[in-house]
Amino acid sequence: MNVSTKPAEHRRLTGKGQATRARILEQAAELIYANGVHATNNEQIRRATGISGSQLNHYFSTKEKLVLAVIEWQAERVLAVHRGEQFDSFDSIDAFRRWAAFYVGYERAYREGCTLGSLASEIIKTDLNVRDELASAFGQWREIFRDGITEMQRRGRMSADADPTQLANLLLAAFQGGMMLAQVAQEIGPLDDALRAAIDHLETFATDESAG
Amino acid sequence: MNVSTKPAEHRRLTGKGQATRARILEQAAELIYANGVHATNNEQIRRATGISGSQLNHYFSTKEKLVLAVIEWQAERVLAVHRGEQFDSFDSIDAFRRWAAFYVGYERAYREGCTLGSLASEIIKTDLNVRDELASAFGQWREIFRDGITEMQRRGRMSADADPTQLANLLLAAFQGGMMLAQVAQEIGPLDDALRAAIDHLETFATDESAG
Repeated sequence: MNVSTKPAEHRRLTGKGQATRARILEQAAELIYANGVHATNNEQIRRATGISGSQLNHYFSTKEKLVLAVIEWQAERVLAVHRGEQFDSFDSIDAFRRWAAFYVGYERAYREGCTLGSLASEIIKTDLNVRDELASAFGQWREIFRDGITEMQRRGRMSADADPTQLANLLLAAFQGGMMLAQVAQEIGPLDDALRAAIDHLETFATDESAG
Repeated sequence: MNVSTKPAEHRRLTGKGQATRARILEQAAELIYANGVHATNNEQIRRATGISGSQLNHYFSTKEKLVLAVIEWQAERVLAVHRGEQFDSFDSIDAFRRWAAFYVGYERAYREGCTLGSLASEIIKTDLNVRDELASAFGQWREIFRDGITEMQRRGRMSADADPTQLANLLLAAFQGGMMLAQVAQEIGPLDDALRAAIDHLETFATDESAG
């Protein structure tokens, strides 16, 4: 389904322009992640990327536009991981267990937290008008889980009693909250526990078919 | 168990000093909550409280000390709610349902989010040395849930198969993650779903005793 036929502004850039834009975004995302939106300014981005102020202004004329693009960039990254082949469109309990193991086993996980969740927590407080962008990113993430659970129901692997949206919200909340608690505790335990228990709950709806 | 016999510095203040200190904390907490730690400065706090710079400095000589005290203040508030009579020390599934209903029904919930979680998400990125304080606050919160579940097991209301720490981490993560998702979505649904499903999971361990 095409929700918009208007091409994003940056798709009209040349190859070289796209590369420069990507370089700015990568550095800006890193700086914003490390220091927060408030503490990140043009001067730091210019120093990190080695590009001029007028060039930076050419790609992102306002801080709001830059932050919007960083959200889009982080969202694309996290959604791409979830849409990767390794998780089989989340069509089995095993796929969810692999997903949990992936994040729990990722050594930088509790130091970094979820890049998108971390950005969201900070931006919620600012005047930047980027809430729609964040809502869309988390909406797509929730949809990946919900579609997987619905597909399991369609294949008879999961009871019709399961509420796919409710379970998707549990999984996403356990991930985001677990990441935050793991960062605070400086150990992965809270994330591991939260994901394990959330997937255990999902499994209470599994049918005998799901084992086959 | 006494973990420390050293009285907190502010307990040595006179009644009037305590009141002034509380007034500063309340305003600082409000400002930090609304604008973030970065964007909150002494000038704003002086204006909001009407006290002088030297007085402010008398109570909180550094920003780190002020932020530490704000965390302690927010933690005391949220822990006091959880220790209140209305939740019966979380010794039944019903008590957990009442807790979820309390936060889901609280009209400012998704606009405000969890004050402590919101503060934690921001502070994790700063150089302020306040992580121990945050870890202790979330540790006590987790303990309230864990103790309730352990008590349910002791009374035979919950199966010995339930892992109290794991379930406490699920509940706390569902709350924190659900709050963040509700703020992003601008509606309470994600929090409601996450808490409902987490408590449903808790209930899968309930025994027949728990109904009586």
